[in-house]
Amino acid sequence: MNAPFGARGTALVLPQPYLLFLGDTTEPGFAKTAFGLRDWAGDKCVGEFALPGATVTTHLARMTPAQAYAEGARGLVIGVANPGGMIPPAWRKSLVEALEAGLDIVSGMHVRLGDIPELAEAAALLGRRLIDIRVPPAEIPVANGRKRSGKRLLTVGTDCALGKKYTALGLARAFRQRGVDADFRATGQTGIMIAGGGMPMDAVVSDFEAGAAELLSPDAAPDHWDVIEGQGSLMHPAFAAVSLGLLHGSQPDVFVVCHEPGRTEMLGTAGYKLTSVEEVVELTILLGRRTNKAIRCGGFSYNTSALGAEAAIALMARESDRLGLPVADPMRGGAAFDALVASCLA
Amino acid sequence: MNAPFGARGTALVLPQPYLLFLGDTTEPGFAKTAFGLRDWAGDKCVGEFALPGATVTTHLARMTPAQAYAEGARGLVIGVANPGGMIPPAWRKSLVEALEAGLDIVSGMHVRLGDIPELAEAAALLGRRLIDIRVPPAEIPVANGRKRSGKRLLTVGTDCALGKKYTALGLARAFRQRGVDADFRATGQTGIMIAGGGMPMDAVVSDFEAGAAELLSPDAAPDHWDVIEGQGSLMHPAFAAVSLGLLHGSQPDVFVVCHEPGRTEMLGTAGYKLTSVEEVVELTILLGRRTNKAIRCGGFSYNTSALGAEAAIALMARESDRLGLPVADPMRGGAAFDALVASCLA
Repeated sequence: MNAPFGARGTALVLPQPYLLFLGDTTEPGFAKTAFGLRDWAGDKCVGEFALPGATVTTHLARMTPAQAYAEGARGLVIGVANPGGMIPPAWRKSLVEALEAGLDIVSGMHVRLGDIPELAEAAALLGRRLIDIRVPPAEIPVANGRKRSGKRLLTVGTDCALGKKYTALGLARAFRQRGVDADFRATGQTGIMIAGGGMPMDAVVSDFEAGAAELLSPDAAPDHWDVIEGQGSLMHPAFAAVSLGLLHGSQPDVFVVCHEPGRTEMLGTAGYKLTSVEEVVELTILLGRRTNKAIRCGGFSYNTSALGAEAAIALMARESDRLGLPVADPMRGGAAFDALVASCLA
Repeated sequence: MNAPFGARGTALVLPQPYLLFLGDTTEPGFAKTAFGLRDWAGDKCVGEFALPGATVTTHLARMTPAQAYAEGARGLVIGVANPGGMIPPAWRKSLVEALEAGLDIVSGMHVRLGDIPELAEAAALLGRRLIDIRVPPAEIPVANGRKRSGKRLLTVGTDCALGKKYTALGLARAFRQRGVDADFRATGQTGIMIAGGGMPMDAVVSDFEAGAAELLSPDAAPDHWDVIEGQGSLMHPAFAAVSLGLLHGSQPDVFVVCHEPGRTEMLGTAGYKLTSVEEVVELTILLGRRTNKAIRCGGFSYNTSALGAEAAIALMARESDRLGLPVADPMRGGAAFDALVASCLA
């Protein structure tokens, strides 16, 4: 993956490689960021750092901040989330230790690192950076709608939290494996940590939402692909504004619809039913055509993690017949995923 | 108009009545805010305050800040905009004079009042407020999509800046004249000044856009109407995120499509053509149905200020025949506007 940010001075750039901080976490579900970084940016992770009492592990080498710095680490990433998004007092001494060892701290939590006095003081004293991934860069322009050079793919979805990030990561990786010049473009906290930069689209002021998406995938070589992580859903009653600004600003040539078979209600809403994948295709074309008349659906990405392999493969084959386009689970790969990749690049 | 904000502690509340500040402005086009306040909130304006050199006037009584305070004024509104949205040094002495006279200052400009040291110091010393209309209230929740009680009307448009605010103001006034309990709900700077409160939708972070719209028109009596000022356009490549979040969160029962006959290109874009009013109707129903299945178009509001009366009336009659719904210019009133009001309330 190239380092697509910084030179343009427009998006976040993170200090790498990382030391993954696990706190005193005992619940694997709270360590999704750490696992995501291990799985998708393993070459940027030198090890893990856990407090006594932690039972969660990434199985990377355990080390102190000083050892990690000696191994080349430059950023400590808070790889775990708490209910409430807070940084508990028990972690603070270790985070100060990381600053003293020479590491910047990277966080995707709701609380701002600089609002914790011990961290703010230590960072100021030592000249370290406290980087909150949720804070967008300053001076994002209003979108202008001008067509940009290069190719773009956007993952969209029937809901939140069903695989848009992993689908984009999987497709970008598969594109590169086939010799296609491609960058993963991150729009959420974990994705930004994996990519080493990006745009936290849900934290951008609405007037600049499409403009932020334009910044995220600037002009590129004609055969270069930006594979952009989607957010929310055009039919989500809370988050559709994020999805539409991202769609308009991304100007995708191709989109892939992400879906979790079996999910029937939208997350966090008062009983809103999921719309069908066909409705999402129609609506995405109707709205996306505004900034790219050639927009088309490349296929479908199904999150089949709740199914056995045989049932998943059979379901996706039936759905592919029904829909007339490839249906694949990027986590399972195989011929179905090869077909999805080929359809996107066609 | 009721005072709909504050008691709920959720949206902006402004100090009234106002003294309108005109600076040293010589270009009437820069004084749109002052004219809007005179025309739509005349009972809340005690006079105007202009510097030597100003040629623009609202024809309200000229007075000093001290005289205005004695007449009951509690807020000085900056009623003019400059190119660039700055507050020129020549205005600052007069603004400090207003603070000293007992007035808070209300601004919808891009620059924040508190970033001007003279004003920040004087306000702190005197215990006055510097109110930037563009700054949304804190702690806006994520939308939940729950259906709220009461009736809602939203003005939508084929583009920005073609009459969505004045249409909402005109409809709310007409509703009240017919004995219907109605509030104008403001979503932009001038509208918020007119209403004395509201939500600056374009300044809200995207993730909370629909939630901000939910806050703006809370549960109400079954026969109460909120008439909500629209923003942007669902087909505008820069601002559609604002429009969609506002549509979803407003849950309108009725919408009115605002259009300026003769305008062919969208403002501020690289050659984007306006979509037809029919396309806007279809798209608004398709997307608005997500949070209110009963959504319907009440008719059309045409900004015919560039036409003579006879040509305007003939055009609107032809368009009404073609579209099968009332077409009116709220600024012209008449039978066409009565028909539009009746259609909305039907």
